[in-house]
Amino acid sequence: MSPAPHRFRAVLDRVAEEVAALPHRGSPADYIPVLADGDPRRFGMAVAELDGTVYGVGDWRQPFSAQSITKVFALALVLSLDGEGMWQRVGREPSGDPFNSLVQLEYENGIPRNPFINAGALVVTDRLQALTGDAAGRLREVLRTESGNPALDFDPQVAASEAAHGDRNAALAHFMASYGNIVTPVPELLPAYFQQCSIEASCADLALAAGFLARHGIRADGSALLTRSQAKQINAVMLTCGTYDAAGEFAYRVGLPAKSGVGGGIVAVVPGVCTLCVWSPGLDRRGNSVAAMAALDRFTTLTNLSIF
Amino acid sequence: MSPAPHRFRAVLDRVAEEVAALPHRGSPADYIPVLADGDPRRFGMAVAELDGTVYGVGDWRQPFSAQSITKVFALALVLSLDGEGMWQRVGREPSGDPFNSLVQLEYENGIPRNPFINAGALVVTDRLQALTGDAAGRLREVLRTESGNPALDFDPQVAASEAAHGDRNAALAHFMASYGNIVTPVPELLPAYFQQCSIEASCADLALAAGFLARHGIRADGSALLTRSQAKQINAVMLTCGTYDAAGEFAYRVGLPAKSGVGGGIVAVVPGVCTLCVWSPGLDRRGNSVAAMAALDRFTTLTNLSIF
Amino acid sequence: MSPAPHRFRAVLDRVAEEVAALPHRGSPADYIPVLADGDPRRFGMAVAELDGTVYGVGDWRQPFSAQSITKVFALALVLSLDGEGMWQRVGREPSGDPFNSLVQLEYENGIPRNPFINAGALVVTDRLQALTGDAAGRLREVLRTESGNPALDFDPQVAASEAAHGDRNAALAHFMASYGNIVTPVPELLPAYFQQCSIEASCADLALAAGFLARHGIRADGSALLTRSQAKQINAVMLTCGTYDAAGEFAYRVGLPAKSGVGGGIVAVVPGVCTLCVWSPGLDRRGNSVAAMAALDRFTTLTNLSIF
Amino acid sequence: MSPAPHRFRAVLDRVAEEVAALPHRGSPADYIPVLADGDPRRFGMAVAELDGTVYGVGDWRQPFSAQSITKVFALALVLSLDGEGMWQRVGREPSGDPFNSLVQLEYENGIPRNPFINAGALVVTDRLQALTGDAAGRLREVLRTESGNPALDFDPQVAASEAAHGDRNAALAHFMASYGNIVTPVPELLPAYFQQCSIEASCADLALAAGFLARHGIRADGSALLTRSQAKQINAVMLTCGTYDAAGEFAYRVGLPAKSGVGGGIVAVVPGVCTLCVWSPGLDRRGNSVAAMAALDRFTTLTNLSIF
Repeated sequence: MSPAPHRFRAVLDRVAEEVAALPHRGSPADYIPVLADGDPRRFGMAVAELDGTVYGVGDWRQPFSAQSITKVFALALVLSLDGEGMWQRVGREPSGDPFNSLVQLEYENGIPRNPFINAGALVVTDRLQALTGDAAGRLREVLRTESGNPALDFDPQVAASEAAHGDRNAALAHFMASYGNIVTPVPELLPAYFQQCSIEASCADLALAAGFLARHGIRADGSALLTRSQAKQINAVMLTCGTYDAAGEFAYRVGLPAKSGVGGGIVAVVPGVCTLCVWSPGLDRRGNSVAAMAALDRFTTLTNLSIF
Repeated sequence: MSPAPHRFRAVLDRVAEEVAALPHRGSPADYIPVLADGDPRRFGMAVAELDGTVYGVGDWRQPFSAQSITKVFALALVLSLDGEGMWQRVGREPSGDPFNSLVQLEYENGIPRNPFINAGALVVTDRLQALTGDAAGRLREVLRTESGNPALDFDPQVAASEAAHGDRNAALAHFMASYGNIVTPVPELLPAYFQQCSIEASCADLALAAGFLARHGIRADGSALLTRSQAKQINAVMLTCGTYDAAGEFAYRVGLPAKSGVGGGIVAVVPGVCTLCVWSPGLDRRGNSVAAMAALDRFTTLTNLSIF
Repeated sequence: MSPAPHRFRAVLDRVAEEVAALPHRGSPADYIPVLADGDPRRFGMAVAELDGTVYGVGDWRQPFSAQSITKVFALALVLSLDGEGMWQRVGREPSGDPFNSLVQLEYENGIPRNPFINAGALVVTDRLQALTGDAAGRLREVLRTESGNPALDFDPQVAASEAAHGDRNAALAHFMASYGNIVTPVPELLPAYFQQCSIEASCADLALAAGFLARHGIRADGSALLTRSQAKQINAVMLTCGTYDAAGEFAYRVGLPAKSGVGGGIVAVVPGVCTLCVWSPGLDRRGNSVAAMAALDRFTTLTNLSIF
Repeated sequence: MSPAPHRFRAVLDRVAEEVAALPHRGSPADYIPVLADGDPRRFGMAVAELDGTVYGVGDWRQPFSAQSITKVFALALVLSLDGEGMWQRVGREPSGDPFNSLVQLEYENGIPRNPFINAGALVVTDRLQALTGDAAGRLREVLRTESGNPALDFDPQVAASEAAHGDRNAALAHFMASYGNIVTPVPELLPAYFQQCSIEASCADLALAAGFLARHGIRADGSALLTRSQAKQINAVMLTCGTYDAAGEFAYRVGLPAKSGVGGGIVAVVPGVCTLCVWSPGLDRRGNSVAAMAALDRFTTLTNLSIF
C-alpha cells in the first residue's frame, strides 16, 4: 500500500500556523557573532518521503548553518567505512551534562560519552580524517549526493568565526589528546571540525540527506550506506543523545530520533516513513530551537507518528 | 489483518536456545543476602500479545523479585491519579551516573534526574503515598488486576532484608527531605518503598501487567489507565532511563522501551504489538541481567521489531 | 622572659573600635530558627594567656551557641583516648566544597575529607560514642574542666531545633553507614551529635578551654591531654580545614589555626603564646562570622603574631 | 641573641642518616622521558639561614629540575609588580583535586582554585608575561640574583620535552581562555610556561633564593621584594596549597609552608629562622618526593621548628 504523495501537506500547514502563534521563541546562538543575527521569527519545515519526494512550509528552502546536525553524517560515514571500531573511542550513553562539559570527560579518562557531544564529535572527525585524509570534504560530498544539491557548501565566514572563538573545542581536543584519544595533530583537526560545522544547507537538503536513516541504511540511489542494524543504531543514539542534555525531554515530548544544531535546525527520523527537518534560529537554554521543537511536538501529536 | 496467535512461539524457542549457549551470565545482586542466592542458569521469557494472550519459554511462570520493575507501575499510577504535577518534582533526563548516586542530586538541588533512579522512585512513592495513603497496596492491586493473578504479593523476607540494608536509600530520602522534595516522614516512606520493591511476580505476570503500555494506555478490561499521550511518555522515559546507566547501550542494542530490576527481570514494550518480560538472575556491572539483555537483543534482531 | 599580664589589652580595645566601624556584618545562620535571631551588632573577643589569665572586650562573657567549634574538642578527646586509629576513617585534607557536601563523600567511598566538615565530625562523634558510651557528656565535661566553668551546658532548645532540621545530617550519617563508616545506629548517633553542637559557651570559656592547643597539649591543671605532636597536628588540621571552604582565605588573611561555628564564634590559636575567641552572629556566605574574621585579621596585623 | 652559625649541621647529618634507611622511596615522574631517569637513591638537603649562610648534606649542590617550585617565585614577582590585582583571577583555596584537574575549573568558571595548581600557575605566568614581556626571563633573573648563582639556567631539553607532552596544559590554557582568563595567545604562553618549569637549580640555589620568604619579604641585598604582609600571604598559600592535594597531610606531618615539584624537590620556610630545600627524585602517588617529605618531617620533629 503506497501512501498518497504529499500526505503530510495539510499537517505541515497546520503546524506552521500554530508555531506562528508561539509567544516565546528563544534567542539565537551568540557564541559566535555570525550566528547572533539569526531572526527567531524565521521558520521552515520540510518532509522527505522515502521515495525522495520533498515538500515543506515557510523558509524550507532557505540555507542555514547546519552546525551539529552534521555530526550524524560524520558518524554514519565513519561507521560505513570502519564498522564497530569507533565505539572503542566514544561511548553511546547520554551525557547528563551540557554539550561541551569537560567534567565527564575527565572522570571517564578521555572517552567522550557519545558521538554527539562536542568531545565525541571531535573523536569521530579525528577518525574520519585518519580514514580519508579529508574529513570535511567527504562530509560535504555525502551531503551533496544524498540531498541532490551540488551547490551545498561550507560557509568560510562561519568556519573562521568558529576558529576565532574555538578555545573550548581546542581545550577538549588537547585534553583528549593527553589521553591518546585524538591522533590527528590538534592544529590540523580543529580546522576540519570547524569546516564541518559550517555547512550551509536548507531544510529540504537535510531532510533528503538523512533519508537513509528512514530507509534502514539505503541511500537515495538504492545502494547501502549502512546495514539495517547500523541505521537502527544511529537512530537509537540520536534518540538518547541527539538533543544535548534535553534528550529525555525531547523523547518525552516528540518521541522521534533527532539531532539538533545551534544554527536552529533539527533533523528527525520516522523510521520506515519519512524524515523531517525544521529550522528556526531561536534557541532555549539547552541549545535546541524552541520553534523547531514545538513544531515536531505538534507534528507527532497530530499524526500519531511517534515511535512509542 | 490479525496476526496468528502465538506468532512469536518459534522465535522464543530459538532465543532460548541461543541464550543457553551464553558463556558468561553475570552474578546475582549481592547487596541483600536474599537475592545473592539467585542462580544465573535460570532463564524465562514471556510474550503478552495485545489481546492478553500470554506464552513463554523456560522459567516463564516462576515468580522472582520484581524490584525496580515496579517503578514503572508506580509512575503510571501517579500519572493516572495526578497528571503532570509529578514532573515538578522529578526530571525526565538520563542520569549519566549509577542508579543510587547522590552527586547529581546535590548539583540539582534535590530534584532527581528521572523517576527510575532510586531517588526519583522515592519521590514517586512519596507522591503515591500522599495521594492514596497506601502506596504499596495500590501498586499490588494494579499488578494483580492487570496480570489477572490474585495471588501476586509482596515477599516480606525481601522487604525486611531491604530495610536492614537500607542506609543508602535512607540517605537519599533524608537528603531530598532537606530540600523539601520528600513530604512523607522518612520512617514511614521507606517501608512503603521497600515493600513495593519486594513484589514477587513471574515473567507472565509482568508481561501481562505492562500490557497497557503496548495498548496506548488501555487496561486489560478495556478502560483507560492512561491517555495515549501519557502511555507514549512513559515509554519514552523507559527508553532513555529504564536500564540504569546503560540506557544508551540498551537502546543501541535492543531498541525498545524497557525497565530492568536487580532481581534479574526486564520488561520491554513493542508499542502496538506486544510486551515482553525476561528473567535471569545474573547481572552485569551496571545491574542489568546479562541473559535477559541478550535475549531481547536476539528477539529484536530476529523479528526486526525495534522501534528504530 | 615573661610578658606583662594582659599584654593584649590595648590591642583588643583598638580591634573592637575598628570592628565597630565595619559597614557590613553578614547575616545570622537561618537553617534553624533559634539561631536566626542572632544580632550581628553583638561582638565579643577574649584572649586567654598560657597561664590561664583571661580578659576581653565587648560581649566576651556572653554565652552563645558553640556549634562546630565543639568539633575541635571532640577530635582532641578521640585522639587522646584512641591515638592514630581515627585517621583510618577520616582524612586530613581540605574539602574544597561546602561543609555538608555529599559529592566528595561519594567519590571517596564514605571517608570524609577531614574531621571538621559535618560528615567527618559525625565519624568522630561515632568513635567517641563507641569509646565512651556518652560522647556529648564527655565533651561537656572536658569543656567545663578546661574553662573552669561548671555551669557550661547544652541548650536543649538548640539541640531540638537541630534535630527538627536534621535531614541533611541524617543523610550524611546513613550514607556513611552504607559504606560501613558509621557503626552507632543512626537514630542514636544523631541526638549525641546535635547535643554536642548545642553547647552554650562564652568567648572566655572557649578561649580558656582551647588553651591546651597553645600549650602543646598541656591541660589547665598541668597534665597532658595530648602529646606535643598531637597538639601540633590538631593545629595543622585547624589551619587547613577549620573555616569551612574558606580555609585558604583565612590562612591568607589571618594566618592562625582556627575553628569557626555557625553560631558566629571563632576560636584561634597562637602556639606558645595564647588562644583567642571572637563572637559576632553575622556570617558570610561561607558560614564564617564577618566581624570575628575581621577582628582576627586586625589582631594579627597589629601584633605581627601570625604563624607565617 | 644570634644563633651559632651552621646550627642545624648535626640535625642535617642525622636526618640524612635516617632517610638513607627508608625502605620505599617512590618512583620518578614519568610524564616526560627526561625526568623518568631520576634515581630515587639520590638525596640532598640544604639550609639557608637568614644571613645567607648555606650548608647541606648529600647532593645539595647537584642541580635538578625545579618544576613547580618556580611557581612560588613567579607568584612573588607578580605580587611585587602588580599587588592584589592577581587575586581577581586566581583563588587562594586548596583544590581538593589532583593538580591538573579541569573539573573544579569548570564549576568555578575558569578561575583556578589557587596559584600553585597548573591552571593557576598558567594564569600567573600569563600576568607576568603581560607585565614584563618576558615571564621566563624575569623569573631566571630573580632566581640568579637571590641565589647568587649567575649560571642558574633553563634546561632546553626539559622545556622541549614538556612542550612535546603538553596537551594537558594546552587544554587548561585554552579552557581558561574560553572564559577570558588567559589573555596571552596560548601558543605564546605555553613556551614561556614550559621554560619556567625547566629551571635547573640545586638545593643550595633554591634555599637561598627563597630566603625572602623567611625574611618577611626582604631580598638578599636588603631591599624589599615584598611587603611583610605579602610575604606572610605567600607562606599561607604555600601551607594550604603548596603540595598538590596532600597539603593537609603535609601540614599535619611537617607543619611548614612548602612548595614541591615533580622533579623531586621541596622548598620549605621557617619564618624568621631559615629556608630549606630537599631533593630526591622518587615521588609518591600525589607527586611529592617521598624522601624529601620524610626528611622535612624528621627535621621539624628533631628541632621543634614547626609553625604550630
